[in-house]
Amino acid sequence: MKTDPVQSGNRPAGKLPRTLAWSGGADGVLRLLDQTLLPRQVETRACHTVEDVWKAIRELCVRGAPAIGVAAAYGVCLGTRPARHETRAEFLAKMRKVCAYLESARPTAVNLAWALRRMIKVADEHTAVSTPELWDALLAEAHQMARQDEETCRRIGEVGAHLIREGGGVLTHCNAGALATVAYGTALSLMYVAHEQGRSFRVYADETRPLLQGARLTAFELSQAGIDVTVLCDGAAASLMGRGLIQLVVVGADRIVANGDTANKIGTLGLALAAKYHDIPFYVAAPRSTFDLSLPDGGAIPIEERPEAEVRGSFGVDVVAPAARCYNPAFDVTPAELITGMVTEVRLLEPVTNETIAELFRAGACTGTDGY
Amino acid sequence: MKTDPVQSGNRPAGKLPRTLAWSGGADGVLRLLDQTLLPRQVETRACHTVEDVWKAIRELCVRGAPAIGVAAAYGVCLGTRPARHETRAEFLAKMRKVCAYLESARPTAVNLAWALRRMIKVADEHTAVSTPELWDALLAEAHQMARQDEETCRRIGEVGAHLIREGGGVLTHCNAGALATVAYGTALSLMYVAHEQGRSFRVYADETRPLLQGARLTAFELSQAGIDVTVLCDGAAASLMGRGLIQLVVVGADRIVANGDTANKIGTLGLALAAKYHDIPFYVAAPRSTFDLSLPDGGAIPIEERPEAEVRGSFGVDVVAPAARCYNPAFDVTPAELITGMVTEVRLLEPVTNETIAELFRAGACTGTDGY
Repeated sequence: MKTDPVQSGNRPAGKLPRTLAWSGGADGVLRLLDQTLLPRQVETRACHTVEDVWKAIRELCVRGAPAIGVAAAYGVCLGTRPARHETRAEFLAKMRKVCAYLESARPTAVNLAWALRRMIKVADEHTAVSTPELWDALLAEAHQMARQDEETCRRIGEVGAHLIREGGGVLTHCNAGALATVAYGTALSLMYVAHEQGRSFRVYADETRPLLQGARLTAFELSQAGIDVTVLCDGAAASLMGRGLIQLVVVGADRIVANGDTANKIGTLGLALAAKYHDIPFYVAAPRSTFDLSLPDGGAIPIEERPEAEVRGSFGVDVVAPAARCYNPAFDVTPAELITGMVTEVRLLEPVTNETIAELFRAGACTGTDGY
Repeated sequence: MKTDPVQSGNRPAGKLPRTLAWSGGADGVLRLLDQTLLPRQVETRACHTVEDVWKAIRELCVRGAPAIGVAAAYGVCLGTRPARHETRAEFLAKMRKVCAYLESARPTAVNLAWALRRMIKVADEHTAVSTPELWDALLAEAHQMARQDEETCRRIGEVGAHLIREGGGVLTHCNAGALATVAYGTALSLMYVAHEQGRSFRVYADETRPLLQGARLTAFELSQAGIDVTVLCDGAAASLMGRGLIQLVVVGADRIVANGDTANKIGTLGLALAAKYHDIPFYVAAPRSTFDLSLPDGGAIPIEERPEAEVRGSFGVDVVAPAARCYNPAFDVTPAELITGMVTEVRLLEPVTNETIAELFRAGACTGTDGY
């Protein structure tokens, strides 16, 4: 029986360390591949406390909606561990505090809140056990989430891989890959599976300013897997579409609301508009944990604003005159009308409407009551 | 009588050195503000030879279609100076060689070819003079072009300033400012004039990857002039439009062809698409020297591809994995149908059609026969 997801998993990008992994048993630590250093340095950062996890999420050492969710689940374990020999009431009070703290790390990706709700549900369901046993159940749940994330991502790739045609060009934005999840990724999972299926295609990766996740992370993990990848500046995407180099756009998501409006990394809206104009299909790939049916439309999604220093310079060099301001919204919202379809672990959703989304949560094993 | 444009001109951005200026008389040099170092270092580079000018244009020490044109005119003077005591035939042979060489520096901006044609016309018209006198006429023509560029840009600002409304947000891309011309700029001239007219407005400047002309140059010159300017990543523009922060988009141009299709810095097409979707007026500001009526539509415009190293890294730090490629087209083409209007030194052109453009060259003093 697999209890430690660190040891398991079929990594498409063989040479990459895992995005995140619990190391050890009940006294273990959470090890995160430090994505702020990639690709120049491949180093892991050990999180011993919930504060370490909060900081790692805030500083984008771990990023990508699904990976943030799983990291937060382990963060709950680390944060409540000091209280595991306290009374149940004290343990639960501590857990509430830890969850509220973790939720404050980043506001846009809904997987963070989703993962915390799953952990709280475990506590609610384990009323008849001791607090050390409850804590063990929380750690088991975090392991389970890590395993499920990997399986879910693999299924997303299998559901959507046929969208990538032999000889075609696929454009993606930011990093919705193995590095944004436990393994495979969401948007990039389609590419890993299509590559396994033997198809040749070219990936165009927007560099994704300001933090260059496309240039640093997507180019890194795809090229390690032997997939043909070319980096371009974000502003060049529309031009490539106009010149017939792109047959498909596929991106990840940080939050998808009831009508299909989708928050994703800043720059996604512009891509969707350019794809629409050039009649190129635009798909969002995301697990059901990224859906937030409590919000009717994208106008209600909180958009994180990150420090202006990220725009003002790169690598410690400021390029903007001090008298000028910088503005750094981390996400934008793409209206559902611009989205051709959504690739989930259950099925391809097309068209994207309130009805097709609602249907996704009515059918099958995973419903609103099991954490989705 | 003004003979040296270095000494003249009402600089809107008082503290900035001139973009380019001839220093001295017949034995003078061309001094260029080195834009690759801005805003961290304000240094001029002296060009003593045509090779110096070619290199300065190629390396973007001087950039912006109008400034490239004037720099090339001075480049002709520098390149032919060693031949000014040769026979007329030898002088003209040298001049042809110099012009072909300069034209090869950058392919997209048509002002370069336009300026060279103007210089050749001077040679054609001065058949009865000695070669030293012909060379003096060429230098006088280059000075004249510099003065005219400044006057032209000022007029562009006066023609279009009313488009900038009190309290509005104006988005621009790259740098179409004083630094892209002899003074005032094209797109930014509207802002300088509106500012002089006492209106308050906010400029949003796309940083403009890969070479960050918006972050480095536009933010620098506008903030020096006391205009409120905020830098954003290129990918954020569509989101700002969606949130009501932008009431006008105005950009420069490198080449406008007969039907109004416009080549400008990579990223312009995406902005135009986002503006269209959000019903925001999108204007191109350019002098008539930027029009190339010999091409029927944008498909025929040569697009410069610049070195991949510009995308691969910033400030000497490579961020893209070596196994991944980078792609770096320097310009894109925005179809006329996405352009609300054009601001020229003669009038506001709206709508943009083959007919309204042709009319611009039929009327007034400047026609196809006088260098336009």
